[in-house]
Amino acid sequence: MFIEERLEALQPLLEQFFEHPSHETLGTIIQEFPIPEMSSMWHTLPVKEQRTLFLSFSLHQRVELLEHLTIEDQLSLIKSLPIANVQALISLIEPEDLVDIFQVLPDEVRSQLWDSLDEKSKKEMIFLLRFDHDDAAGIMTPRYLAVRKTITVKQCLRFVRNNASDLRTLYYVYIVDEFRRIVGVLSLRNLLIYETNMPDTSLSELMETKVISVQEDTDQEEVVQIMERYTLLYIPVIDKLNRILGIVTIHEALHVLRLEQTEDVYKMGAMEGSAEKYLTSNVWNLVLKRIPWLILLLLAGTLTTNLLSAFQPLMESAIFLIWFLPVITQTGGNISTQSSTLLIRGIARNEVSFANISQVFRKESKVAIILAFLLSVVIMLRGMYFPPGLSFQQAVAISAALFFVSIFSALIGALSPLIIARFRLDPTVMTGPLMGTIIDLVGMSLYFSIASLIHSVILV
Amino acid sequence: MFIEERLEALQPLLEQFFEHPSHETLGTIIQEFPIPEMSSMWHTLPVKEQRTLFLSFSLHQRVELLEHLTIEDQLSLIKSLPIANVQALISLIEPEDLVDIFQVLPDEVRSQLWDSLDEKSKKEMIFLLRFDHDDAAGIMTPRYLAVRKTITVKQCLRFVRNNASDLRTLYYVYIVDEFRRIVGVLSLRNLLIYETNMPDTSLSELMETKVISVQEDTDQEEVVQIMERYTLLYIPVIDKLNRILGIVTIHEALHVLRLEQTEDVYKMGAMEGSAEKYLTSNVWNLVLKRIPWLILLLLAGTLTTNLLSAFQPLMESAIFLIWFLPVITQTGGNISTQSSTLLIRGIARNEVSFANISQVFRKESKVAIILAFLLSVVIMLRGMYFPPGLSFQQAVAISAALFFVSIFSALIGALSPLIIARFRLDPTVMTGPLMGTIIDLVGMSLYFSIASLIHSVILV
Repeated sequence: MFIEERLEALQPLLEQFFEHPSHETLGTIIQEFPIPEMSSMWHTLPVKEQRTLFLSFSLHQRVELLEHLTIEDQLSLIKSLPIANVQALISLIEPEDLVDIFQVLPDEVRSQLWDSLDEKSKKEMIFLLRFDHDDAAGIMTPRYLAVRKTITVKQCLRFVRNNASDLRTLYYVYIVDEFRRIVGVLSLRNLLIYETNMPDTSLSELMETKVISVQEDTDQEEVVQIMERYTLLYIPVIDKLNRILGIVTIHEALHVLRLEQTEDVYKMGAMEGSAEKYLTSNVWNLVLKRIPWLILLLLAGTLTTNLLSAFQPLMESAIFLIWFLPVITQTGGNISTQSSTLLIRGIARNEVSFANISQVFRKESKVAIILAFLLSVVIMLRGMYFPPGLSFQQAVAISAALFFVSIFSALIGALSPLIIARFRLDPTVMTGPLMGTIIDLVGMSLYFSIASLIHSVILV
Repeated sequence: MFIEERLEALQPLLEQFFEHPSHETLGTIIQEFPIPEMSSMWHTLPVKEQRTLFLSFSLHQRVELLEHLTIEDQLSLIKSLPIANVQALISLIEPEDLVDIFQVLPDEVRSQLWDSLDEKSKKEMIFLLRFDHDDAAGIMTPRYLAVRKTITVKQCLRFVRNNASDLRTLYYVYIVDEFRRIVGVLSLRNLLIYETNMPDTSLSELMETKVISVQEDTDQEEVVQIMERYTLLYIPVIDKLNRILGIVTIHEALHVLRLEQTEDVYKMGAMEGSAEKYLTSNVWNLVLKRIPWLILLLLAGTLTTNLLSAFQPLMESAIFLIWFLPVITQTGGNISTQSSTLLIRGIARNEVSFANISQVFRKESKVAIILAFLLSVVIMLRGMYFPPGLSFQQAVAISAALFFVSIFSALIGALSPLIIARFRLDPTVMTGPLMGTIIDLVGMSLYFSIASLIHSVILV
């Protein structure tokens, strides 16, 4: 949230640097704004400044910056640079990041960069391109440590040391058989413990043989859940034959969790599609993302038009019913949102499922009756003692209608997520706007029916 | 989501075990349902079964289970066990977990357990209890590796090895001065690289001196963001004098991110307070959590009552305006939610800020005009050609009103988050129900004003 202050601090440094480029100033900039932080402000710089600054960086800093940028920023930076500069650093980028970049590059740039890749990187890229973007294999790195089970602790640690400079992910060693099937795992922590007392024992005697892994087509979100549950820093991705394909790191998992949050927020906000940047996204793309839901909801919403026109005779004889229509349907919506939120969270945490539906029904009924009673008292007092002012009979009619609408809304809000989850669908659709329209519609009919019934009974 | 299937698989194994307790059956259960998975189903077992199963576990398994349970499950399990059994394992639990358990235990149990702690654990607990729950220090572990900068790589690795069995968190070594102030950091990965070539170099020559750390009172959510940005497995927590207090692990950060998700969902669902389990939570607690927001929203919502009663003369002369009232206010709400969602996400990702307000205004105006135009055409056709059926003049009035309500809603939805964030407040309040009520209210006034204006102009 403090980005504006940080930007204000960066600006004079940058101006100084662009006027008189010097190693000292650049050093100060990097010191004050390390690459990972710089990357989050990168898009605020004009393209020309981006290019000058980038070309002043060391090769190591260039790679670090590129890896930290979002895909849009990567793309625009690469396009703005002379191709030779990109070719010089492309082999240093981690393959799982590079594969994402390659997929969005224009064909011409892609083929020029492809030619400059070394054989190892080309192979890794071709391997990674096979997998689906949303699966475990789509977020794995093909760079991990795998050894045979016959080697000793000492030999294994020598192997780890020799590979330490190439690998960012060496805190677990996977033990594989001749077909690269995983048969065990050892953490570097345990290897160090064993090194002291039994350096010549073979790994097969020490390794953990119960290896938690995921299939190549396991959903990304499930991968995150499993890593959380088993407190893992990495998790191996295997194919149908149990052969290791790569590993997913905990930081990739965190990244998925963040994207998932955005997706959920989008779903609640009645939009489709991927998360582009607002400022740089195209007006027509924004319209296309938004208009389908809006038209659907508009047409669904006009069912209330039909309902209201059907109740017109009633409304004409009791116009006060209209005055309270919006607030009562809103309240029904609020209650049902509360109930859904509680139950959706319970389902997500495996605390409650369809098997508990009768328990939920009993508990929610009790809660609903108390809530409905309290709200009815409030609306009755509000209706009678504040403008526009209702008669006692009118207030009773409104109050009773709110009572029943509240109970209905609480129960539908609580039970629907259980039923939706029973059919393996995502219960968060309940908090979506379409469900809101449906609840409004039923709430309105209930409201008019009950209010008119009670009103006529009392008047008689 | 597959918990029901997993429960069905667990049930027969458990029945077999409770009838004829045997090591084989227990072994099969643990094999099929490792402790971390068992812990997520634990609350579904009856307390008596929980106790029997728990007491059949090895000490190691008991500790692992306890650490994986939620705080509610921990509490109910501890209460159900003979105190001696708990005393036997309490010193083995990680201090940062233990401190959370201690804070919810009944006084009597707490004092009995306290007496059974060893001196080291007591000291750690007293240390941790000083800190605020929501801060960086509230989620740190006091168990980390710190060494002096004068030692060599070889000496450091010997120290790491000697402490490996006590520490879960040894992949970074922090280098401190005589006042325990952090002066550097080295990853185990780099230590292993240096061990081969320069085992006798002192750490001070090799260490990374720019250590990313957080203050003891840094907000938990910010801790997570910094760990993500710098791809850290652990981050040190320091006091005002730069002395290290403890470290936060990446898994604790993941846990915070999950809780944060729940909190955000709650906020959108118009509820206050902490996240208890639905099935076991008390009816009155649920009512108390829900009723304040409901009454507040009900009273705010009744402002629409006053508005509608004020427009009553107009409504009587043009009753068709009522028919379309709900659908038009809903559509306004949907558009404003879309805009807010886009901008809130942009703000959270530092892609857009108050400085861009005029850019946002221009872009959102273009989008809004297109959306508003399309929606107006749809409502016009819907109004004229489907029941209840409007005249051309009536349809134009409704359509024009929707046009302006749409533009107004899009702009208010897009600009408010920027303004709210400018004042360092959380822009997600925009998606909350209170803002919805306010937008409804303004949308309704706009609707009646414009529709009546156009209706009267056309009729004239």
